[in-house]
Amino acid sequence: MTIADRLTELGLMLPTVFPPAGNYVGCVIVGDIVHVGGHGPVDGDTVICGKVGAELTLEDARRAARMTALSILSTLNAELGNLDRIRRIIKVFGMVNVAPGFNQTPAVIDGCSDLLIDVFGERGRHTRSAVGLAALPFDIAVEIEMIAQLWPEP
Amino acid sequence: MTIADRLTELGLMLPTVFPPAGNYVGCVIVGDIVHVGGHGPVDGDTVICGKVGAELTLEDARRAARMTALSILSTLNAELGNLDRIRRIIKVFGMVNVAPGFNQTPAVIDGCSDLLIDVFGERGRHTRSAVGLAALPFDIAVEIEMIAQLWPEP
Amino acid sequence: MTIADRLTELGLMLPTVFPPAGNYVGCVIVGDIVHVGGHGPVDGDTVICGKVGAELTLEDARRAARMTALSILSTLNAELGNLDRIRRIIKVFGMVNVAPGFNQTPAVIDGCSDLLIDVFGERGRHTRSAVGLAALPFDIAVEIEMIAQLWPEP
Repeated sequence: MTIADRLTELGLMLPTVFPPAGNYVGCVIVGDIVHVGGHGPVDGDTVICGKVGAELTLEDARRAARMTALSILSTLNAELGNLDRIRRIIKVFGMVNVAPGFNQTPAVIDGCSDLLIDVFGERGRHTRSAVGLAALPFDIAVEIEMIAQLWPEP
Repeated sequence: MTIADRLTELGLMLPTVFPPAGNYVGCVIVGDIVHVGGHGPVDGDTVICGKVGAELTLEDARRAARMTALSILSTLNAELGNLDRIRRIIKVFGMVNVAPGFNQTPAVIDGCSDLLIDVFGERGRHTRSAVGLAALPFDIAVEIEMIAQLWPEP
Repeated sequence: MTIADRLTELGLMLPTVFPPAGNYVGCVIVGDIVHVGGHGPVDGDTVICGKVGAELTLEDARRAARMTALSILSTLNAELGNLDRIRRIIKVFGMVNVAPGFNQTPAVIDGCSDLLIDVFGERGRHTRSAVGLAALPFDIAVEIEMIAQLWPEP
């Protein structure tokens, strides 16, 4: 089964590719490693903003982390042509826009990790940090970056 | 001298492996590189929590960073079978759970860096960032992630 | 044209190499990848400190990010002998010392990204995160770490 088929099976649609918010690119491939820069919970005109633990609940933030994972996959799909070239998700760095006192950051970033494992199975199992940031660009709720390994080009 | 012998010589014991706090794994190996996700100051039932500069002093936090380094080594020891396969510590990303006004984060993370160099000698000398976070999972005092290079499997 | 010539053309001077603020080194090379640890806006006796959005404006912070990029290049120049061995800037992780309410972190870190692209052209185009930290060492305005790919040694 291709990853595209798996996404359909899960009822998931990739959002349009989000253009970088400054003078940089969404990801860079060197050898068999792809580094994906920070992505946020953006899907077309929808952006999830606000401090988690104040304007947003844990559940809101978990959904934002899931949206962010889909935005990352959209960038990779555009860069690679398809998602079947992803051999292993290596690492996720999950940053949560926290209000004072909120520290359930692992439960938030599970929204991203769960999706990656749903989509890629064992190949999606990664290592991770999930931490609370003082500020994220444009007050987005979550920002996530990722490192993955690719199969050689066919 | 093996690293196990060196740990004994230094009077250090590895804690039991800390189970990940969400849907992820403690480290991922790709080629000769191991990525270790965020670890905290946990040793069995002991966890060091609190804001550094308020509930915790610089010295408390430095001890927490040292405990965190041992927790990372415990994860690597379990994954690799022993610590002699570590060829070089490449990078440490040290995150300190700061109270407003506390910015001596390098002195805190030296608790981790000093231990790595004590244990591995020149091979333990790494590059690093040491910064102040707004929140860490479960209010732990310090969270550290690491990248290292491995020797080929024998 | 060498990178040294390009720096001269742009009217840029590398600062003296900043000594690490703890028990670590400025960068580590493994294979064809160099990991550069956290650098700050330091040029000789000049250091840009303060919270962005309170003591410092966006423009001040953007200049600090540009200074930080030059400090990173100074470390790489000292390690590599020259900057022509840099094949590709892979990733920048930009951390801004934010006052409450400031979240224009991408515009700040563009001060670094713009300079890298001015100096290296297409080879300088990287992926990135640009986020707001609760505290940076010694209250510096900006801290940036970087990953780059090198050409083989001649």
